[in-house]
Amino acid sequence: MSQLFKTIALIGKYNSPEIGDSLLRLAKFLVEQEHTVLLERQTAESTGVTDYPLADLEQIGEQADLAVVLGGDGTMLNIARSLYTFGVPLVGINQGRLGFLTDVSVDTMLETMAEILAGDYLSEARFLLNVTIRRQGENVYEACAFNDAVVSKGATARLIELEIFVDGQFVYSQRSDGMIISTPTGSTAYALSSGGPILHPTLEAVVLVPICPHTLSNRPIAVNSESTIELLLLHADDARVHFDGQRHFDLKENDWVIVRRSKQMVRLLHPFGHSYYDMLRQKLHWGEKL
Amino acid sequence: MSQLFKTIALIGKYNSPEIGDSLLRLAKFLVEQEHTVLLERQTAESTGVTDYPLADLEQIGEQADLAVVLGGDGTMLNIARSLYTFGVPLVGINQGRLGFLTDVSVDTMLETMAEILAGDYLSEARFLLNVTIRRQGENVYEACAFNDAVVSKGATARLIELEIFVDGQFVYSQRSDGMIISTPTGSTAYALSSGGPILHPTLEAVVLVPICPHTLSNRPIAVNSESTIELLLLHADDARVHFDGQRHFDLKENDWVIVRRSKQMVRLLHPFGHSYYDMLRQKLHWGEKL
Amino acid sequence: MSQLFKTIALIGKYNSPEIGDSLLRLAKFLVEQEHTVLLERQTAESTGVTDYPLADLEQIGEQADLAVVLGGDGTMLNIARSLYTFGVPLVGINQGRLGFLTDVSVDTMLETMAEILAGDYLSEARFLLNVTIRRQGENVYEACAFNDAVVSKGATARLIELEIFVDGQFVYSQRSDGMIISTPTGSTAYALSSGGPILHPTLEAVVLVPICPHTLSNRPIAVNSESTIELLLLHADDARVHFDGQRHFDLKENDWVIVRRSKQMVRLLHPFGHSYYDMLRQKLHWGEKL
Amino acid sequence: MSQLFKTIALIGKYNSPEIGDSLLRLAKFLVEQEHTVLLERQTAESTGVTDYPLADLEQIGEQADLAVVLGGDGTMLNIARSLYTFGVPLVGINQGRLGFLTDVSVDTMLETMAEILAGDYLSEARFLLNVTIRRQGENVYEACAFNDAVVSKGATARLIELEIFVDGQFVYSQRSDGMIISTPTGSTAYALSSGGPILHPTLEAVVLVPICPHTLSNRPIAVNSESTIELLLLHADDARVHFDGQRHFDLKENDWVIVRRSKQMVRLLHPFGHSYYDMLRQKLHWGEKL
Repeated sequence: MSQLFKTIALIGKYNSPEIGDSLLRLAKFLVEQEHTVLLERQTAESTGVTDYPLADLEQIGEQADLAVVLGGDGTMLNIARSLYTFGVPLVGINQGRLGFLTDVSVDTMLETMAEILAGDYLSEARFLLNVTIRRQGENVYEACAFNDAVVSKGATARLIELEIFVDGQFVYSQRSDGMIISTPTGSTAYALSSGGPILHPTLEAVVLVPICPHTLSNRPIAVNSESTIELLLLHADDARVHFDGQRHFDLKENDWVIVRRSKQMVRLLHPFGHSYYDMLRQKLHWGEKL
Repeated sequence: MSQLFKTIALIGKYNSPEIGDSLLRLAKFLVEQEHTVLLERQTAESTGVTDYPLADLEQIGEQADLAVVLGGDGTMLNIARSLYTFGVPLVGINQGRLGFLTDVSVDTMLETMAEILAGDYLSEARFLLNVTIRRQGENVYEACAFNDAVVSKGATARLIELEIFVDGQFVYSQRSDGMIISTPTGSTAYALSSGGPILHPTLEAVVLVPICPHTLSNRPIAVNSESTIELLLLHADDARVHFDGQRHFDLKENDWVIVRRSKQMVRLLHPFGHSYYDMLRQKLHWGEKL
Repeated sequence: MSQLFKTIALIGKYNSPEIGDSLLRLAKFLVEQEHTVLLERQTAESTGVTDYPLADLEQIGEQADLAVVLGGDGTMLNIARSLYTFGVPLVGINQGRLGFLTDVSVDTMLETMAEILAGDYLSEARFLLNVTIRRQGENVYEACAFNDAVVSKGATARLIELEIFVDGQFVYSQRSDGMIISTPTGSTAYALSSGGPILHPTLEAVVLVPICPHTLSNRPIAVNSESTIELLLLHADDARVHFDGQRHFDLKENDWVIVRRSKQMVRLLHPFGHSYYDMLRQKLHWGEKL
Repeated sequence: MSQLFKTIALIGKYNSPEIGDSLLRLAKFLVEQEHTVLLERQTAESTGVTDYPLADLEQIGEQADLAVVLGGDGTMLNIARSLYTFGVPLVGINQGRLGFLTDVSVDTMLETMAEILAGDYLSEARFLLNVTIRRQGENVYEACAFNDAVVSKGATARLIELEIFVDGQFVYSQRSDGMIISTPTGSTAYALSSGGPILHPTLEAVVLVPICPHTLSNRPIAVNSESTIELLLLHADDARVHFDGQRHFDLKENDWVIVRRSKQMVRLLHPFGHSYYDMLRQKLHWGEKL
């Protein structure tokens, strides 16, 4: 039997013993189908499922042909940042509530996985953002983001002041609570709450969405994903840059936050018949057919 | 000579020696007009102007018939919170840039003050918010706000979860970056940046403006100023309540933030001919007559 | 037996034979309770229910102690405009979908009406807008609106240009698709779709909401309901003023649209336990208790 | 002397005799530089300038190597729609007020034209929209749009109801005042007033921006320019589709409006040093460097 995905890694939501049953059911099913199953080490620890070979994320990146993530969008963001350079495709199984990135229901996961393993799936490539912090001419931090890099004020009530440059061209200065630099993937997350547009995943665009800007005519602007976006933090009592809302780095005045599209892309697999618009409609309560 | 305002207090922007010259010119002018001048103690210290009787804010509240503030809107907010219970009317002299609350230009301050002292002024009363924090049944903090009380997440990237009640009625639960509870005075400040409406100062209304709410149909809602607004902080890793962006208090989960209209009002005096709409138009770059 | 509401008028949605059954059930119930029932003439014609004394709206205004409206919010708007000067209180029975103004469900209408007739109800007063069109110094049209008066471009794609004055003070000039002048009642209707705030029904406020304004810093502004709002149509190829989206009048350049709060108010009766916020939450899909 | 642009057409704003002087100065300059000048026929008529060979737009498309437009953005939109299939590059000279598309000032036009003719320019390609109206299976109208195709209600106050499909996939149904389908070029025009994002001109994206949608969670969505966008008009008392706000077609219920990216692109020439962001900053009053 020829297999598209010989070795399959299973990765669960962080510190979530409650996914143990689903994990076991899925692992058993995959082994019955003669796949090799790798279990992510932390997932094994938190669920107590230990009957399968363990692997850390780097080993998964090197050895797995497919990674199945049991969790929500937060888990997918985290895993995507860890695995995207390896090119391992990802499937997301939600634990009851449809996510933007986790579109397989745990209730039908075995049927859906059977289809995907048989080659009935839609594959989609999405880029991430590579972010560098430059301080006094030195690169002091690097990180990547799948949804967004967000420069924002800390706990104080004070506005921050920043300047934005795109491809070396000055865009504007701004006093605001912060600035969201979002991929199409992130356009349905924080950027949307802050007034940004939805960007279809196929767009090679990055959107800059100001958070509560002092100047009322500051509007979201989508630029080409090939552009280099540079943000200069002019003034802040206390500011940070957040990556997918999961990691952060403390900024100082005169720091530069430099954002570029990742060269490699995450590959997401969806069940055949998956529609991005169906998912938006469900999540955002948009109007069904009349 | 009968005088409307016998004793006049002068209060300057915090830690701003550069206002010393204006302060001296104004004090000299008032003394020539046979007014008694009180100089706020910190203002005297930071400017080195010491030729007049000094007074702290409480003494000013008790003794002054009028307080003239040299500074920007931030200074006015601070002084209004300190003096509103005493009923001392306030005049705001801006240092070059028109403010929403400081509408007398330093360039014409002597002429304008002469008019005001002669009784040619518009008087306006504005309310503040009295805010109580209740923790496990105890009132643990009290403060007032002239612009707004803002419950917001701290330095983390996580949403906070809260429930809002108005006059004991449940309004909604919300996941967001925070919630602005604003007076009409504050409606042109942070609330406006966050998508709130402008409320004319004569309105007996308080507006609730969510900051980046997760639910896209959450919109600003203006309620009666007589209402009691209660906010229950359900979940937060790190949250604060800010008062006019100048003071704050750290919140814990299950804290209640209780907001009521102040019984006393601030009295603001404006030059005759002052128009609220002219000021909005200038500050917001709205269209002039065609 | 003493009765709060001796004579009760029944008014149905325009041209809607399908409400005939509900109408009959309700009429029968009221007569059994020894109320005098008046049936609105057009309702009788469209439903074929003719067993009760007929009356036109003016007669209802003069004779009825209560008017029960079977229909949606559109019907309530129409009837409120016709009856508000008579002071007849209104109850709205929706035909299956909760409305902002029609909060009694047809499924439970007899129980609810029994409670209301027994005096268990909440009464609420709401104002309307009186609108006058002045052309070359003459008043050429008058109308009233319960939700909103909307000045908007006609079928052309061209912006209109207008100037707004409040209490004789110039507010701004604007190029836009139009301007919504809304009561608190109308704040959950068209004004909300155009970015306006929700105004609690007890607020004595009128909100001006621009429709797609050319100037990005034009924001909704709520002014005191006692104010006189004057709108001068400077330029338009084709413009109209709409009243509750149900009636309209064609405007010409240099027409003035003058809006004032009505002196009389509509009295709406709600079932005991009615909550404005519950209704908002249901209609707008806001978050329930967590 | 080798010339990049041998034959240059001059086209003026419609019915605008006031551009005659600029036109003469420019024509004289070009002839001195040994270019062949073609004068657009209607421009000649309205200005009375008749000393140059006349040509209609089709002849200009066939014969000119460059077309210089004297007017505002409206004129550029109109000319671009007429000439884009011919591939003639365009330069826009504004008559005093900077436009998004007309970035050469009349005050410096000779110097700027000299530079452009010497090869010192930036060239930029922008796509248009090809729009087809299908009625009962027949194509009944075709048009193109450089800024936007806008389906909107006519003079009535009633919402229209529509369904949107992208690449055959159902997106949502919507009740609204209308829907704007905009190119990046149009994203700074009507779409921006209606809450849409700015799309950089290099983006291969089309943005769908609802106008006053009834459902508050309907947000602008940018899709790939390669997509076919189909809009089904389900219900309307009176609806139209507008092209750049300059032409329109009356729609009937059940009409389909089908939008695709044009295969050919408009080529715009800008003076060397032109910055898209500088232009945005000037037009939208964004913050300059601090």
